[in-house]
Amino acid sequence: MNFKIKGTDGKARVGELILKRGLIKTPAFMPVGTAATVKAMLPENVKALGADIILCNTYHLMLRPGENLINNLGGLHKFMNWERPILTDSGGFQVMSLSGLSRKSEEGVEFRSHIDGKKYFLSPEYSIKIQKTLGSDIIMCFDDCASFQSKKNDVADSMKRSIKWALRSKEEFELTNSGILFGIQQGGIHKDLRDESIKRLLDIDFQGYAVGGLAVGEPQAEMFKVLDSTADKFPNNKPRYLMGVGKPDDIVGAVLRGIDMFDCVLPTRSGRTGQALSRRGPINIKNSKHKKNSSPLDPDCNCYTCLNYSRSYLHHVFKSGEIISAILLTWHNLYYYQELMNDIRNAIKNKKLIEYSKEFYKLQNSRDLL
Amino acid sequence: MNFKIKGTDGKARVGELILKRGLIKTPAFMPVGTAATVKAMLPENVKALGADIILCNTYHLMLRPGENLINNLGGLHKFMNWERPILTDSGGFQVMSLSGLSRKSEEGVEFRSHIDGKKYFLSPEYSIKIQKTLGSDIIMCFDDCASFQSKKNDVADSMKRSIKWALRSKEEFELTNSGILFGIQQGGIHKDLRDESIKRLLDIDFQGYAVGGLAVGEPQAEMFKVLDSTADKFPNNKPRYLMGVGKPDDIVGAVLRGIDMFDCVLPTRSGRTGQALSRRGPINIKNSKHKKNSSPLDPDCNCYTCLNYSRSYLHHVFKSGEIISAILLTWHNLYYYQELMNDIRNAIKNKKLIEYSKEFYKLQNSRDLL
Repeated sequence: MNFKIKGTDGKARVGELILKRGLIKTPAFMPVGTAATVKAMLPENVKALGADIILCNTYHLMLRPGENLINNLGGLHKFMNWERPILTDSGGFQVMSLSGLSRKSEEGVEFRSHIDGKKYFLSPEYSIKIQKTLGSDIIMCFDDCASFQSKKNDVADSMKRSIKWALRSKEEFELTNSGILFGIQQGGIHKDLRDESIKRLLDIDFQGYAVGGLAVGEPQAEMFKVLDSTADKFPNNKPRYLMGVGKPDDIVGAVLRGIDMFDCVLPTRSGRTGQALSRRGPINIKNSKHKKNSSPLDPDCNCYTCLNYSRSYLHHVFKSGEIISAILLTWHNLYYYQELMNDIRNAIKNKKLIEYSKEFYKLQNSRDLL
Repeated sequence: MNFKIKGTDGKARVGELILKRGLIKTPAFMPVGTAATVKAMLPENVKALGADIILCNTYHLMLRPGENLINNLGGLHKFMNWERPILTDSGGFQVMSLSGLSRKSEEGVEFRSHIDGKKYFLSPEYSIKIQKTLGSDIIMCFDDCASFQSKKNDVADSMKRSIKWALRSKEEFELTNSGILFGIQQGGIHKDLRDESIKRLLDIDFQGYAVGGLAVGEPQAEMFKVLDSTADKFPNNKPRYLMGVGKPDDIVGAVLRGIDMFDCVLPTRSGRTGQALSRRGPINIKNSKHKKNSSPLDPDCNCYTCLNYSRSYLHHVFKSGEIISAILLTWHNLYYYQELMNDIRNAIKNKKLIEYSKEFYKLQNSRDLL
């Protein structure tokens, strides 16, 4: 791994993360390919839209089709026809949020599959093994995620357990040479816990650091407050990844606070539920006011969807339940996200991120496209 | 319109149908784009896969989004981003098969929308008007379709009404200059009725002729029997279209009997329900025997799906309900259909259609891929 900072603007950094399977321009947005597909997209399109890396989920893939099946078929990249880097989430978040009754112990988490109710067990060691078996390029530590509603005591316990699990994750990771490993900071919205988490992660030493446990229901201001006192405590020469974030304005705010990497289901999920994201805010294509509208989603957008289809058509195919609706909206949303990241990178290079951000927030709130 | 026969082999013909919006190589397969989208495909892909023309449905489009809305947006081609020829079905078949209670009279058919139960009325005049409003390149007469179960008397009545409606369709068609008009033969599996239908259609005189009322549940042998005594009674210099057909072996058999054009939902519908079609017969990707199979659907196929994805992956994404499953299987199926048509055209040019057909039927029944 090689991470080069090519420029800074305030706390924001523009750089390149160079991995065996390719170069990732940062700040980077990683489309989510949960079950070995970025939903509604072909991998060639995802790449052409500007993604240097995607995220896949250990939790989903261990349940179906299983990491060994994927390994026997040549690994995750070949299986899903995506040759570039893949980051795998560890499953720590999903076993709590998606599975049925899960039982946590010091050893790991026993849980029931959301697909068939079958019992499974995940531990730091097993999660790392699965991620290596899949052939992941960026492996995440198995962490213990407290919910946003948890009391501070529980958040503290959860953070401390995450540290122990991070150590075990690293020990397992070092047994064989494959991929790179990121540690995950926890601690909810509590500054002292976040600080302790970072300190102990730095003692263990990782190739990259993630901020976990945010974007779980807290107000944006709380998230930014955590980042204000967090991001620049990570080593300057290593990538910083804010997990599961976010809305375009979350991303701009987080880059301003020193974050380099993002993932979020928003552009893909919204694409399937009739919501387009744009420089002027979200557009709900289900709304009947679009029925006869011959304009594209965004007249300033050069994506395939905006160049070729009217809102009227998009409204029609959404209402008709046609698959092309998910394809075209997801296409636009991923294009918009990658264009946003590209604009952010250019703004940092030109030391104009503040100006860019002001203009961005003004447009997002202008709503004149809605 | 210009229809050139470039070669024959027995009753089979290879040719070119030249319309304002493009050339159609015949024998041609028209993918079905019912509601202004070939399901799960982008129009660019449909074209790249070899389709010179697609079919859209008057019935569906009049209900949603409505022909006037489409017209106000610049017509169907622009609306759906498909610049090449479009054939529109008249709605005659759908008002009987899809709508709720429908009431037929000499004037036309009153029916209830399958979407919202609202009452609509279609007549020959109105169907032609809608097709012109959409901007259709090949307009179909509004016909009265008897079901396969109908008694001969009813089939005869239906055929006779279709002739009267064909005359009214033509009168309406001639009021303005737009598109070309095909007549539709009816008469079920009854030779005398089919003969009478042709004779009377020829008296009216159309730019192309369709065989309607087949592929509605009768055995393939019955369908071929009708074609044996039908297709070459149409004028040699005009295209012949077998509506709603069919399976690959239906198509080969019908071309041998003199048919030039086909449409069918099979490749697209199968693509969404986990069935791939191939030179060695159908492959049910849902079957668990494909779970660990690293081979493509068809090792002899050069489509995007077969070049890049294993059966194991296709099984996984189907089981996971992923949209890419519909995309990849539909892609393969449309590729296979267009390759089949291309092979058929070459076989006719080389006067080798009999040999080709024997090899085709042998492979289809070999099932060694299943």
